[in-house]
Amino acid sequence: MQRITILIHCEDQKSIIATVTNYIAAINGNIIYLDQHVDADENVFFMRLECEFSAKDWNLESIKSHFETHLANPFNMNWEIYPQEQKPKMALFISKYDHCLYDILGRYSAGELNLEIPLIISNHEDLRSVADRFEIPFEYVPFTKEIKAQGEQQQLDLLAKHQIDFVVLARYMQIITPQLIAAYKNNIINIHHSFLPAFPGAKPYHSAFKRGVKIIGATSHYVTEELDEGPIIEQDITRVSHSHSIEDFIMKGRDLERMVLARAIQLHAERKTIVYNNKTVVFS
Amino acid sequence: MQRITILIHCEDQKSIIATVTNYIAAINGNIIYLDQHVDADENVFFMRLECEFSAKDWNLESIKSHFETHLANPFNMNWEIYPQEQKPKMALFISKYDHCLYDILGRYSAGELNLEIPLIISNHEDLRSVADRFEIPFEYVPFTKEIKAQGEQQQLDLLAKHQIDFVVLARYMQIITPQLIAAYKNNIINIHHSFLPAFPGAKPYHSAFKRGVKIIGATSHYVTEELDEGPIIEQDITRVSHSHSIEDFIMKGRDLERMVLARAIQLHAERKTIVYNNKTVVFS
Amino acid sequence: MQRITILIHCEDQKSIIATVTNYIAAINGNIIYLDQHVDADENVFFMRLECEFSAKDWNLESIKSHFETHLANPFNMNWEIYPQEQKPKMALFISKYDHCLYDILGRYSAGELNLEIPLIISNHEDLRSVADRFEIPFEYVPFTKEIKAQGEQQQLDLLAKHQIDFVVLARYMQIITPQLIAAYKNNIINIHHSFLPAFPGAKPYHSAFKRGVKIIGATSHYVTEELDEGPIIEQDITRVSHSHSIEDFIMKGRDLERMVLARAIQLHAERKTIVYNNKTVVFS
Amino acid sequence: MQRITILIHCEDQKSIIATVTNYIAAINGNIIYLDQHVDADENVFFMRLECEFSAKDWNLESIKSHFETHLANPFNMNWEIYPQEQKPKMALFISKYDHCLYDILGRYSAGELNLEIPLIISNHEDLRSVADRFEIPFEYVPFTKEIKAQGEQQQLDLLAKHQIDFVVLARYMQIITPQLIAAYKNNIINIHHSFLPAFPGAKPYHSAFKRGVKIIGATSHYVTEELDEGPIIEQDITRVSHSHSIEDFIMKGRDLERMVLARAIQLHAERKTIVYNNKTVVFS
Repeated sequence: MQRITILIHCEDQKSIIATVTNYIAAINGNIIYLDQHVDADENVFFMRLECEFSAKDWNLESIKSHFETHLANPFNMNWEIYPQEQKPKMALFISKYDHCLYDILGRYSAGELNLEIPLIISNHEDLRSVADRFEIPFEYVPFTKEIKAQGEQQQLDLLAKHQIDFVVLARYMQIITPQLIAAYKNNIINIHHSFLPAFPGAKPYHSAFKRGVKIIGATSHYVTEELDEGPIIEQDITRVSHSHSIEDFIMKGRDLERMVLARAIQLHAERKTIVYNNKTVVFS
Repeated sequence: MQRITILIHCEDQKSIIATVTNYIAAINGNIIYLDQHVDADENVFFMRLECEFSAKDWNLESIKSHFETHLANPFNMNWEIYPQEQKPKMALFISKYDHCLYDILGRYSAGELNLEIPLIISNHEDLRSVADRFEIPFEYVPFTKEIKAQGEQQQLDLLAKHQIDFVVLARYMQIITPQLIAAYKNNIINIHHSFLPAFPGAKPYHSAFKRGVKIIGATSHYVTEELDEGPIIEQDITRVSHSHSIEDFIMKGRDLERMVLARAIQLHAERKTIVYNNKTVVFS
Repeated sequence: MQRITILIHCEDQKSIIATVTNYIAAINGNIIYLDQHVDADENVFFMRLECEFSAKDWNLESIKSHFETHLANPFNMNWEIYPQEQKPKMALFISKYDHCLYDILGRYSAGELNLEIPLIISNHEDLRSVADRFEIPFEYVPFTKEIKAQGEQQQLDLLAKHQIDFVVLARYMQIITPQLIAAYKNNIINIHHSFLPAFPGAKPYHSAFKRGVKIIGATSHYVTEELDEGPIIEQDITRVSHSHSIEDFIMKGRDLERMVLARAIQLHAERKTIVYNNKTVVFS
Repeated sequence: MQRITILIHCEDQKSIIATVTNYIAAINGNIIYLDQHVDADENVFFMRLECEFSAKDWNLESIKSHFETHLANPFNMNWEIYPQEQKPKMALFISKYDHCLYDILGRYSAGELNLEIPLIISNHEDLRSVADRFEIPFEYVPFTKEIKAQGEQQQLDLLAKHQIDFVVLARYMQIITPQLIAAYKNNIINIHHSFLPAFPGAKPYHSAFKRGVKIIGATSHYVTEELDEGPIIEQDITRVSHSHSIEDFIMKGRDLERMVLARAIQLHAERKTIVYNNKTVVFS
């Protein structure tokens, strides 16, 4: 049996679900998971479906082709079909902070992440030893305003060479260039250390401390050209009090960053997110 | 347009979703919500579907009749169809604790609950004035071991007279008799003041205090003959510490009880729960 | 035995705790609770202390007088001493939203709030019947930009007449005038329906929906002249998803507003808050 | 300046705080943190105090000696004084589960844990490579019922040799012998994968799944001879639904186990816990 995941979004129309599920029935497929959502304001239909079918009787390429002709085109769908055994390839961008890096590589080594990590890129040499420890290829790509074009080209070349599907900024402290954003649209995930839209930009824990908030948070989002304004994938918070210093905020925040980023990576790798209108539909 | 909610569960079989959604398409219905779940261990399929159709063109009774013949019977479904404009009728059973009562009646008066409350039954006269304040009929039904049969009969008569659909025990401090449980199977909701299965039975806050737990909880569940062992609808917790006394546990617990019970009532009233195998499927 | 609560803040200096606790020992007092905090950046010391002493042997006024001369003055303290049997008097300001009102009056009637509510002021007549239901005096005080001075004077007169200690804005939809803010400095509590500083101002649920956040929140704070920028007392959040409409946000938010405001009221009434530097110290 | 942490518990008596803080004042010490708790039922006083004093003028050993004679003895205190620069030495006991191990070693390598890890003991060879990766000495100590006495002796010898202060069972799947428990009383920390007292013993996720709970949890506690009944240090929970399989419970639970165990380790290492009456006082 072969398992596939189907993601669809299109204008809301009658009979979409019936048509899709009829097709699954027609190939003797078994629906394992189906969730759908209608954005009533925008009149958009979203669906995620997992099913399995006999790989002997049905060929994935012919299924895709049939799906395109007889379902996607008539309904004018945006659609993707992924075989579940195909693990996406993730590159990590890092700088000097190591807590998210250790967390991701620990989870990866423990077999929790359904993906491959063939590449780590950093604008500093500091964390090479951590990459070595986990035996992940580490590439030092210097990046400053002055050598932006050169840095960007190196990044793009490395990503292409390693056939990277998506990029995770694990507290990477440099801007991502528009060309890279365009090349990996909705495929670059950042972790920001506040509950956005509060405290965008630099030093959010300091701002949170100054404001005297009683909760701090972290936000994982897809990167767009507007800093910290991309579609939010996942957020979480923790309580703080007057008794916590900025250092305590930072330390507690590290736990949030780790957890929120790990969840976002997992959701993306399992194809549970669809981006629409600068927001995400996140299937459970 | 008429809106209906359809709840289904049956043995998992191919083409159920296709068949049901084809039928909705056939009556020119528009699916507003569809969620399904398969219990892989038990091989049971569950679905909740909301749709709207033209009340001019299609009659609810004929839809039910067609559904039974052409869908429910062939697939051997357990099924229910509810028109959404029909609000369920809820009776409250209370004793002397008033916090859940005030909360429910406050929400009801503020228009948050999609139901009617034609009846409050209590085994004490103490809270009659609260019922009066909110203008809800209050019936005093004494209940002790000695007069169990008589009390039960009075309860059943009052529930029948007011055409009650479901019963909520808002910290009612007497046992519910097997006959009443049978008459309102999966339609009696209790709030227990612990995160079950921890601390069943009497005085859970005292037991929690003695054990030195760092979280306390509340659990709302359907009542079955086994005390505190019915299908769980909703649970929540709050943190406690050594600095909290038993009185603090009780006071913090009141907030949990209110909130968890209110959510369970809402879920039940919106037909979002299906009971199977002493567990609940709770659609979001 | 008489129980008192002592609140202190002053420049951090050596021997403050020793001096205060020596004094309690000198009047044969028993310390029931002591918590202290030092703001290291600002070099400010904060302390909350509960103790009991023999009311036969020691008189509260003479204690206060002694405390002032021998402790507060030498250390240049800001200080307050409250007898615990003296319940603070709270006024509610409301408009048309009734959910926080029902919640507060329900808790009050259930005996959960350690305060008195001798007065409700509203700029609309709509909720008079709710006040009547709970037998709380209700005063209609019209308030618009045009009659601001007159409205403010009526408010101040009513607050004075009822000897109000603090004011709670339970979704009151008018601005509070600078004169009222000055008269009740750090004694006016507002509930804002977002996790501030995100989404200040009007329609925060709409903004949150548009931004696609995965958590929404509520914030209770003391009112200052800067809208939604006063010292935060309490915040809480709940998770939302793409499947929730703005109406769902609003309904889930009502639960947050109720809960967060109730906690802030409780903290203030039990004298557990000290305001400093536009932030709060909140003792547990 | 030298910083010390003082932990005290004893029968509640008048003037304890005054006496202790007078002493700190007498050595020109500066109190950085003071928190106290009175267990009113048991009449026990608990205090944690951090202070700094001039290491030139005052010697730690003479302070301890003075403290014992003039404070601890008169009040019959249980007491400990720790210099903060002295990091406790922690041994990890592991079996085959690696997720907590990766998490702890990642945090340790990232400099988040204020302790040293000179030793990992395992009853299997499987995770030696992880220990090697982080360059922590790994000792294989076979342990089965048949060779219990021998295994225990090896464990005790290794702990003694490495001057271990406390032991963490990071999903170690063997019982701890009474002699080891006695040797490290209140110094062996376990992580159990349920919110105790619910689901003690084996396979708690399976039991939770069967019961249909809506929250699952993890509990970190000190090990006593009664399985899963020792003093609880920290607990946390996460929400689950009918849509989660047992495998999902296990995967979500791993995050809880990691987080709860890491917090308990941190609390213990910073000497923030006092055990009394099979419960913990956990200072914030």
